[in-house]
Amino acid sequence: MEIVVQKFGGSSLSTVDKIKQVAGQIRKRKQDNLGIVVIVSAMGNTTDELLELARAVSSDPDPRELDMLLNTGEQISIALLSLALQELDLEAVSFTAAQLNMTTTSSHQKARIIDIDTARLHQELAAGKIPVVAGYQGVAENNEYTTLGRGGSDTSAVALAAKLEARCEIYTDVDGIYTCDPGILTQARKLERISYEEMLEMASLGAEVIHPRAVELAQKYEVPLYVGRSCSSRRGTVINGGIDYLEASIVTGLAVSDEDIEITLRNMPGTSAGLAAVFSSLAETEINVDMISQLRDKNGSMHLSFTIPGTDLEQARKIIGRNREKWQIKDWWFRKDVSKISVVGPGMRSQPGVAARVFRLLADREVDILLVTTSEIKISWLVPAGQKEKAAAVIARDFGLAERAEPGE
Amino acid sequence: MEIVVQKFGGSSLSTVDKIKQVAGQIRKRKQDNLGIVVIVSAMGNTTDELLELARAVSSDPDPRELDMLLNTGEQISIALLSLALQELDLEAVSFTAAQLNMTTTSSHQKARIIDIDTARLHQELAAGKIPVVAGYQGVAENNEYTTLGRGGSDTSAVALAAKLEARCEIYTDVDGIYTCDPGILTQARKLERISYEEMLEMASLGAEVIHPRAVELAQKYEVPLYVGRSCSSRRGTVINGGIDYLEASIVTGLAVSDEDIEITLRNMPGTSAGLAAVFSSLAETEINVDMISQLRDKNGSMHLSFTIPGTDLEQARKIIGRNREKWQIKDWWFRKDVSKISVVGPGMRSQPGVAARVFRLLADREVDILLVTTSEIKISWLVPAGQKEKAAAVIARDFGLAERAEPGE
Repeated sequence: MEIVVQKFGGSSLSTVDKIKQVAGQIRKRKQDNLGIVVIVSAMGNTTDELLELARAVSSDPDPRELDMLLNTGEQISIALLSLALQELDLEAVSFTAAQLNMTTTSSHQKARIIDIDTARLHQELAAGKIPVVAGYQGVAENNEYTTLGRGGSDTSAVALAAKLEARCEIYTDVDGIYTCDPGILTQARKLERISYEEMLEMASLGAEVIHPRAVELAQKYEVPLYVGRSCSSRRGTVINGGIDYLEASIVTGLAVSDEDIEITLRNMPGTSAGLAAVFSSLAETEINVDMISQLRDKNGSMHLSFTIPGTDLEQARKIIGRNREKWQIKDWWFRKDVSKISVVGPGMRSQPGVAARVFRLLADREVDILLVTTSEIKISWLVPAGQKEKAAAVIARDFGLAERAEPGE
Repeated sequence: MEIVVQKFGGSSLSTVDKIKQVAGQIRKRKQDNLGIVVIVSAMGNTTDELLELARAVSSDPDPRELDMLLNTGEQISIALLSLALQELDLEAVSFTAAQLNMTTTSSHQKARIIDIDTARLHQELAAGKIPVVAGYQGVAENNEYTTLGRGGSDTSAVALAAKLEARCEIYTDVDGIYTCDPGILTQARKLERISYEEMLEMASLGAEVIHPRAVELAQKYEVPLYVGRSCSSRRGTVINGGIDYLEASIVTGLAVSDEDIEITLRNMPGTSAGLAAVFSSLAETEINVDMISQLRDKNGSMHLSFTIPGTDLEQARKIIGRNREKWQIKDWWFRKDVSKISVVGPGMRSQPGVAARVFRLLADREVDILLVTTSEIKISWLVPAGQKEKAAAVIARDFGLAERAEPGE
């Protein structure tokens, strides 16, 4: 029997009516020779509401008790969706992660899946039933309940698909993966397919559709993924392995992120020891440095610019303030109004001119380039936030990422 | 170590502030040599809200999925109360019934407790922790989640106390057990203690405080019970065994119930076969007949009156309508505006004059007596609903069930 794991996110289950719609979609798909396993998140904002309750009773909630609390969100969803499926005369049966022995590590709030016992699922599937499984949850040693942290439900779905040797379909409230955020580039084009690798490089493009952690897992176990809008007839995007280099477009997509800030340290001694001191201090407080650029003056003094998540600014400020004299930094500042534009594409491996072409495009449009970094299939530019739309539009047009205007339009 | 099981009902946990108050009450009680195990119900109206959701997606919700859904109510409570206790620097740790292996029968929605594994609880208590356990839940064969049905949380608490050889304290939103419903008799007196047996006979007096099912279990395993208002310094009521006949008051309490209706069948053949036919037809549809009175005319024809729960009226109507010809009933009617007044007291065993005394009191006040039934420690009268206050007041005054007015009042 062919098996497909279908995952429905919280936005697809936010009301009783939406739950009924999802049940209707599952019924349409159900055929005798297809086994369907459903994985769900908590309804709508349930998780946030539960967290709010926790914070109302506790100034610093214990992760174990948070997991106990948050587990209820998915448990409500599985029961309600099962009831809705039964109302359509489908035999549905709900399971918590603990019931399926979805074992994880013991790290509450950020557990990692160890294994899943699929015996019960195979038994229910063989009986023609539709198991409805709580995503995001796990059970650790000593029968302790855990949650998987960010991207947990997507990860549950892919892990289950891997164990069941099934395909995995992620249903959410967007149509699929776009070449660029339609909020920034209205003519962004939906991709019919994309490789795991590109998807991971474009995390920010797809994070609202599927979490990178789940994509990584799918890549590792070669689980074919499909992402699309729930209860919609529009085709979504297939994510799978094997980039076909002959046909590969040079640039698959364009990601724009406003989450980082730029920090510049000016006139510090141009030694590797100095660089190491800065970055290890940041790493010790778990500040994630993304783009880095260093420049040495003729006189040997160094200028260093790098980006960090905007949420870590206060932390970074303290570290730099504390060490400024020791590190012999003459001057330093940060800049919040910056955007990172990344172009991703497997074809970049074989066509080295992409960077040059983008530099030229940006220069023509007078976009200031603050920083640049490159990886095998991705190049990122940091630009002033006010210029991101202009930059995104020119790159998208030049690399064919926008919808082609119909003749006459 | 002495152990006490404290149960807090949904009304004591209906808001974040109330949860904090309950945590405060537990802290006051906690001492080094006392082990406290807490059992909780779902917050406020959570269970009703969840049932409403279930009915919104399903016309006839599957009991298994209802149990999956309802289990979340208590799970939210245990997590939040544990967090609130931790906020007061107490080491609390929450457990679902499944985690403690509180095994039950497999009857969803009305499971019965089979056993509880207390090893984990003893371990946590020995470590100075306060286990916070989800009431109302159980786990059946195959790791299926169940709920215990009506009175479930009280029953969980008593069962756990029995296994731990502990006392059991039930905290709710009333002060204790009264001689009569204060809504009917404003001067009703709170009892300092009452026996299991009397408590069971006065179920309707105490049902809002503790469920009869839990009292039965407490009686069976001789678990000392205490019921009282949560977060209050007022003494509640102790429920335990061993009625002290020497000191026993003749009448302990007076219960008034409006839940039943009276059905009268007139002029039917005066045979036992006729009676058997009526009551077995009602029993087959699980209609609970309470009071019964039969009377035979000189000419041999029989009149039969009995009470059934008002909620079963339609069902009873159908049965009587269907069988009226076969049973040869000339005439029949029902009466909704009736109240049952019961007096309960261990002293009635040895003092047979109670019934006569009440008949006299009611006759003096011109209260119509529709039906009467007696048991070893209880006598019940059915009276017109409009006369229940008058009847309750005169009985309460005569048997000393009301507060004594202070001199000068």
